[in-house]
Amino acid sequence: MSEKKVYFFGDGRADGQADMKNLLGGKGANLAEMTKIGVPVPPGFTITTAECTEYQQTGQLSDALKDEIREALKQAEKIMRKTFADAADPLLFSVRSGARVSMPGMMDTVLNLGLNDDSVAGLAKKSGNERFAYDSYRRLIHMYGDVVMGVDAEHYEDAIDAIKAKRGVKVDNELSADDLKDLCATYKDIVAKHAGAPFPSDPWEQLWGGVTAVFKSWGVARAKEYRRIHRIPEEWGTAVNVQTMVYGNLGDTSATGVAFTRDPSTGENRFYGEFLVNAQGEDVVAGIRTPQQINQAGHDTLPAGHEAKDLPTMEALMPELYNQLAGIRDDLEKHYKNMQDIEFTIQEGRLWMLQTRGGKRTGAAAIRIAAEMKGEGLVDVKQAIMMVEPDHLDQLLHDQIDPKAELEVLASGLPASPGAAQGMLRFTAEDAVAAADDGKNVILVRRETSPEDIAGMNKAQGILTSRGGMTSHAAVVARGMGKPCVAGCGEAVVDAAAKTLTIDGRLFGEGDVLTLNGTTGAVIAGAPALVPPHMDDPNLAKVMGWADGIRRLKVRTNADTPHDARQAREFGAQGIGLCRTEHMFFGEDRIRRMRQMILADDEAGRRAALDHIRPLQQEDFEGIFEAMNGLPVTVRLLDPPLHEFLPQGKKEIDQLAGDLDVSVDHIERKIEALHELNPMLGHRGCRLGLTYPEIYEVQVEAIIGAALVVKAKGVDVHPEIMIPLVGATRELADLRVLSVATAERVMKEQGAEVDYLVGTMIEIPRAALTADLVAEYADFFSFGTNDLTQMTYGYSRDDINTFLPVYLGQGILPTDPFQQLDQTGVGQLVEMAAKKGRAANPKLHLGICGEHGGDPSSSAFCHKVGLDYVSCSPFRVPIARLAAAQVVIEEELEG
Amino acid sequence: MSEKKVYFFGDGRADGQADMKNLLGGKGANLAEMTKIGVPVPPGFTITTAECTEYQQTGQLSDALKDEIREALKQAEKIMRKTFADAADPLLFSVRSGARVSMPGMMDTVLNLGLNDDSVAGLAKKSGNERFAYDSYRRLIHMYGDVVMGVDAEHYEDAIDAIKAKRGVKVDNELSADDLKDLCATYKDIVAKHAGAPFPSDPWEQLWGGVTAVFKSWGVARAKEYRRIHRIPEEWGTAVNVQTMVYGNLGDTSATGVAFTRDPSTGENRFYGEFLVNAQGEDVVAGIRTPQQINQAGHDTLPAGHEAKDLPTMEALMPELYNQLAGIRDDLEKHYKNMQDIEFTIQEGRLWMLQTRGGKRTGAAAIRIAAEMKGEGLVDVKQAIMMVEPDHLDQLLHDQIDPKAELEVLASGLPASPGAAQGMLRFTAEDAVAAADDGKNVILVRRETSPEDIAGMNKAQGILTSRGGMTSHAAVVARGMGKPCVAGCGEAVVDAAAKTLTIDGRLFGEGDVLTLNGTTGAVIAGAPALVPPHMDDPNLAKVMGWADGIRRLKVRTNADTPHDARQAREFGAQGIGLCRTEHMFFGEDRIRRMRQMILADDEAGRRAALDHIRPLQQEDFEGIFEAMNGLPVTVRLLDPPLHEFLPQGKKEIDQLAGDLDVSVDHIERKIEALHELNPMLGHRGCRLGLTYPEIYEVQVEAIIGAALVVKAKGVDVHPEIMIPLVGATRELADLRVLSVATAERVMKEQGAEVDYLVGTMIEIPRAALTADLVAEYADFFSFGTNDLTQMTYGYSRDDINTFLPVYLGQGILPTDPFQQLDQTGVGQLVEMAAKKGRAANPKLHLGICGEHGGDPSSSAFCHKVGLDYVSCSPFRVPIARLAAAQVVIEEELEG
Repeated sequence: MSEKKVYFFGDGRADGQADMKNLLGGKGANLAEMTKIGVPVPPGFTITTAECTEYQQTGQLSDALKDEIREALKQAEKIMRKTFADAADPLLFSVRSGARVSMPGMMDTVLNLGLNDDSVAGLAKKSGNERFAYDSYRRLIHMYGDVVMGVDAEHYEDAIDAIKAKRGVKVDNELSADDLKDLCATYKDIVAKHAGAPFPSDPWEQLWGGVTAVFKSWGVARAKEYRRIHRIPEEWGTAVNVQTMVYGNLGDTSATGVAFTRDPSTGENRFYGEFLVNAQGEDVVAGIRTPQQINQAGHDTLPAGHEAKDLPTMEALMPELYNQLAGIRDDLEKHYKNMQDIEFTIQEGRLWMLQTRGGKRTGAAAIRIAAEMKGEGLVDVKQAIMMVEPDHLDQLLHDQIDPKAELEVLASGLPASPGAAQGMLRFTAEDAVAAADDGKNVILVRRETSPEDIAGMNKAQGILTSRGGMTSHAAVVARGMGKPCVAGCGEAVVDAAAKTLTIDGRLFGEGDVLTLNGTTGAVIAGAPALVPPHMDDPNLAKVMGWADGIRRLKVRTNADTPHDARQAREFGAQGIGLCRTEHMFFGEDRIRRMRQMILADDEAGRRAALDHIRPLQQEDFEGIFEAMNGLPVTVRLLDPPLHEFLPQGKKEIDQLAGDLDVSVDHIERKIEALHELNPMLGHRGCRLGLTYPEIYEVQVEAIIGAALVVKAKGVDVHPEIMIPLVGATRELADLRVLSVATAERVMKEQGAEVDYLVGTMIEIPRAALTADLVAEYADFFSFGTNDLTQMTYGYSRDDINTFLPVYLGQGILPTDPFQQLDQTGVGQLVEMAAKKGRAANPKLHLGICGEHGGDPSSSAFCHKVGLDYVSCSPFRVPIARLAAAQVVIEEELEG
Repeated sequence: MSEKKVYFFGDGRADGQADMKNLLGGKGANLAEMTKIGVPVPPGFTITTAECTEYQQTGQLSDALKDEIREALKQAEKIMRKTFADAADPLLFSVRSGARVSMPGMMDTVLNLGLNDDSVAGLAKKSGNERFAYDSYRRLIHMYGDVVMGVDAEHYEDAIDAIKAKRGVKVDNELSADDLKDLCATYKDIVAKHAGAPFPSDPWEQLWGGVTAVFKSWGVARAKEYRRIHRIPEEWGTAVNVQTMVYGNLGDTSATGVAFTRDPSTGENRFYGEFLVNAQGEDVVAGIRTPQQINQAGHDTLPAGHEAKDLPTMEALMPELYNQLAGIRDDLEKHYKNMQDIEFTIQEGRLWMLQTRGGKRTGAAAIRIAAEMKGEGLVDVKQAIMMVEPDHLDQLLHDQIDPKAELEVLASGLPASPGAAQGMLRFTAEDAVAAADDGKNVILVRRETSPEDIAGMNKAQGILTSRGGMTSHAAVVARGMGKPCVAGCGEAVVDAAAKTLTIDGRLFGEGDVLTLNGTTGAVIAGAPALVPPHMDDPNLAKVMGWADGIRRLKVRTNADTPHDARQAREFGAQGIGLCRTEHMFFGEDRIRRMRQMILADDEAGRRAALDHIRPLQQEDFEGIFEAMNGLPVTVRLLDPPLHEFLPQGKKEIDQLAGDLDVSVDHIERKIEALHELNPMLGHRGCRLGLTYPEIYEVQVEAIIGAALVVKAKGVDVHPEIMIPLVGATRELADLRVLSVATAERVMKEQGAEVDYLVGTMIEIPRAALTADLVAEYADFFSFGTNDLTQMTYGYSRDDINTFLPVYLGQGILPTDPFQQLDQTGVGQLVEMAAKKGRAANPKLHLGICGEHGGDPSSSAFCHKVGLDYVSCSPFRVPIARLAAAQVVIEEELEG
């Protein structure tokens, strides 16, 4: 049985529906769905993503596919009562890509398919608009020549510039029908010359070429780069939507527009959109003409001096059509239960919906929409939680400009993507990437952005454009990336060639620093102070409260200081999952004592130095325990190799020799003796604790001592002693004995008691493999997935950059395994260790403290394998709380 | 139900038997067995090893144990018709340790238990030999004071020296009964003074003390050291044998001796033993008096000038007893089906057997005994194979002195353990260890060795002693270790204090080098040429043939040159499992080209350099393929990181810059760029192959090119291309595509074909975890257990020595996981990968090429998890063949 390859939609009837996104792509599934619920959609059909995958392998369209396409096209002809490329009254088609998730501007589109020298004449006659007909035809030749036949766009632009110069006109609209007719001939010559083959006049050849081009576009470099950044698997493929053309450029009763059912920047419940009269849809998105607002509410928000401020709204120009559109807006929100991003075209006074999809939004908007839609009864708690993406919360946690700072606002643009960004100016994507790789903060300044700029946008702190609206490429992509963006800043004059930005006569170059406020649209001179974000949005509190009510996984934080501990607690941390102690040895007086200890020749010498360190470390623990009153605190005993504490430079060595009254030679010999070829696999972690037990002993003394001190003050303290780098059971067994003996001794000396746990990191593959044995000596396991990933893959994090870019670029690795937990390999060890550990010790408490703890997909995995908590950096805590709730809801949905 | 704690034996009846070694120890099980088969054994009983383990935990003997001991002792009294410590006619006992495997001299013994001031008088009267009675008593006080009460032996020796001086006599034997009586009193004073408690006169207290001391002796440092070297688990424990005393020192009709049922050095089927008239057993083993041969055949083998040459044999002195002993020898060999090491005592003309156990033997002897016993019909093929230990073969593979070398033989001693050893002289165990750790080859020279010398013997190349026989401590231990040893070299005068050796007036010190021929007993001046061993012993060929007929596991070798390949083939290798190619880049012209490639800025530059390397590498492969005609050769593509090929020194860099006409700065920048913090986890293996595909491409060209060349010459060639360091499936998938495409291209160019395989190393934990996915792209897996161990444990082999000694010393690790495969952890990954790989790809061929391939216990594991072959260094090939047969036989025995 062959699978159905083509899904028809039109006139209230469709083969597909909204939940078929994997097969039909987001756009195709929604065209089908919209058709079904009675929204006016131009008829057409969708070729499945499975055919894209097939194409990537075979490099051609199968006969079976072509047959199904012919059949579906016939149905569209029937509905529209026209015939494809009929010389008298041609039915024309668009061909568009449509992947499972939106990849704005990433893939190719061809419009007006079906025109040729014959049918263009029929179209002119039938429409009574010769200018329109030849304009459509020259657009087809240009797009087809570019997209399908690979003839660079500049050739057409040169030709049109030449004819405009010849006619003495400024904009395309001023060219006459005859000019456009000439231009069509010129374009065909260009194609024939540069492609080495003529533009095909056979409409079917055009169609096959268009479909093939979309499939091919899945594999081009910029699409790959986009997928890499957005973690979209190669094998998903794209669907192709072939749809009857409707025209927004048939005069002043025609228009085209893009809208969001709510404000995508703030989330406010108001219909927000932009349109252009007598234009094709591409004109709005490309940001070439500044679009008008669809309604007065939107118009009111435009900054003074904005180009569109003087243009009428759709609400004013076409009130009936506006009301019809607003009605469809309500229907779509009710049907999809989410904020929608829609495209529409008005052809000679008739409204057609071309697309609806879940709208991209800022973090703040996502939170507000979720909270308000729940308030409106449109969604329930779980649906509301699922509307917020983890990355949305990440945006909320971006820096903001200090409200108390004095600002020199240079200009205002559209608040296209919120947050504050500062950096040196760069005027091309390449320059931005180079500077960012060089460690610089960069603001990417462009007249308008295009898909070629993706890599540069990704590396920039923020984006400033001088043209385009809230739905321009820059705005949409920046919101998707969570980058601050000010778009359409008309006062800014950008000269990319000269690498300058001029605002009100002031010249800025690559050496200058600007600040963008993407929340207000302000462009600010210099670098005013930034402040960390607040989490006091009441909508956020609501959503997080709902999430907390649903999640099973607890969320702790990785924090080494009382300050970090307090901050994490504000963000909802339920304890500390990893308190590293090595930082506590690096303070001024401490590092000297640490070095004295390392340089000592015997245990007595080491103990003498440690005696000075103990009270300082105890003080640190007291502060952290107080900050986490009532919550558990997992303290990891010393982990790094001792050589990390020794000085490297000649001068520092000389000074240390003087300080400690030892010879330079002694220090140098010690440095030499401690040198390791592979320190990651060397003498560190519990290997230190076993060879120099006095170090761990003093640390346990400080932990238990601190716990007793704060407990005496009334603090509810729960210390957990964590032994790092265990690979052999006896390592933990012996160090547990040491820890317990030390703790008991300290408590006896102090005449007081405190509960404590002793457990281990699982970060060595062998510990995971033998977790049943290790668990007998552990109260808890904490998965150290950073090291576990290093050893399971055999990758040094410090050295991986020599080959990781190639690996990601070629798809050898789907993602960086240090960012997203490798569930296939490393995850097996986590799951195995959790299972074996719990079987051997049912009371075993399980958590993760690697940086993966803050990655949503990784923490969902942690939930699924039954861990008790994840621990992550303070700013990731809210994200982890949300992700933990979402995985519960997803599990319920999956049944 | 409590377990039986004490096993009685005596008068033809015994609770235990030979197969209860785990519970009764080797000695105890054999005393029971011997008793059962009618050999005359003094009655007694064995306390189980379980009680030793119990003692290590509780530190005391339980009442239940004491009850069972009292009961068993009563049975011995009944048989001997005497009463324990009866004041008139005391029954006396020995207390001896006896672990599962023999640990010669390692643990403590107390004799004559039951004597006190009353019973010694009774013994004197009853035996009519007052001298004997008091001699026995003073021995008891000495041993008990030393072993049980911790009073150092030197105190007794001082006392006996004093009385001998007073009496003007030289040897103990010359002391009178009264002298000995005085000595008993003095000894008791010594004990009271140094132990702070009197020597116990209560015989039961003596017994409990003796048993406790044996249990304690299991835990002392020298026993632990011995177990570490011989890989004996701590938890085995030792049994205690309490046995009726019989005396070889009751005058000239009494004697004591030690014998082997066949020559333990050559394996010749002749009864071989030594004895002393009027002596206790300890005197023979301790090497204090030079013992006499038991028969003429042995006497004939003594070198001229040997002290025993003038002494009569037992065969001559006591012909009837000798015949009885020879009869028992035959019985024991027939019963045990193995060569036995026996101890006997003749008390006033009556023969008693004190012990029998499997005799330690040299490698050559083991092979000969196995082959001959099979020939005699005493054992079958499988039993013969099981009689040879892998270490025996290792000994056979030791170097020998070049037969063509001119030798200056300084002296001759006993050929105590075969093979040739050369080194600088060291006169204490400590000095030997220090020098060996310093990288020196060492000959340890001692008058006689003692258990304290174990560590030094282990580190030495060979051992030379001036006293003692073939059953002396030095001889037994050296044979066990497979170290060459010349013992009892009377011409050698050793002065340990002055650190000199004098032979025939010539003085040798620490700076001198000597050579020992442990096979002939020769002590040779200087360092004559050594030759690698021959495998042309016909007995060896027999045994190996039997093994080859039984084993399922194939044995390949790791070889990088035609020379190594040929040698391994002689040793029975069935192919090359690992041919490393990096060595091929280090030749004079090659390293320059390699560096040129690394320093090139682009692929074209790299290819230009590789073009020079290709033909050279192809030549290497041709040689190896020819040497392995008919057998598979697995070639690993380049593995080490590129920086290993770059020069480090300033001078070398300058020269390279000149050679290649590039700037020094360029080279230094490249070195800096290639520097890695953890090269083990860095840019190497297939990561190089993917980032610089031209390197692997050229290597595949060379492999296939070479295969075609030799195939054209009629060589049967089976190249296998091995991709190293795969951790992600796509790594192998992509490199398989590259390899196959390259191979097909070369074959097309040459117009000829050759079969080849493409597979991978499994050395990254993730590859093992995802072996089902990886296997889809592999024709074979070869387990690289060196790296797999590094990553599974997180141990860098280069850095492990900073903590491994502590880990082994404290038993945190049972063995070095790089020597013996860690079956608990790393083994899980091997087993998992084998299982998953085969399930996904039933044709998958599986092998191991880590150094574990040559370790018998590791290769047994490989057999059990179903690998097809092991690959090891050429000299380990015969061992692997034997081990592979033994594991099959063991499996059959286990059912």
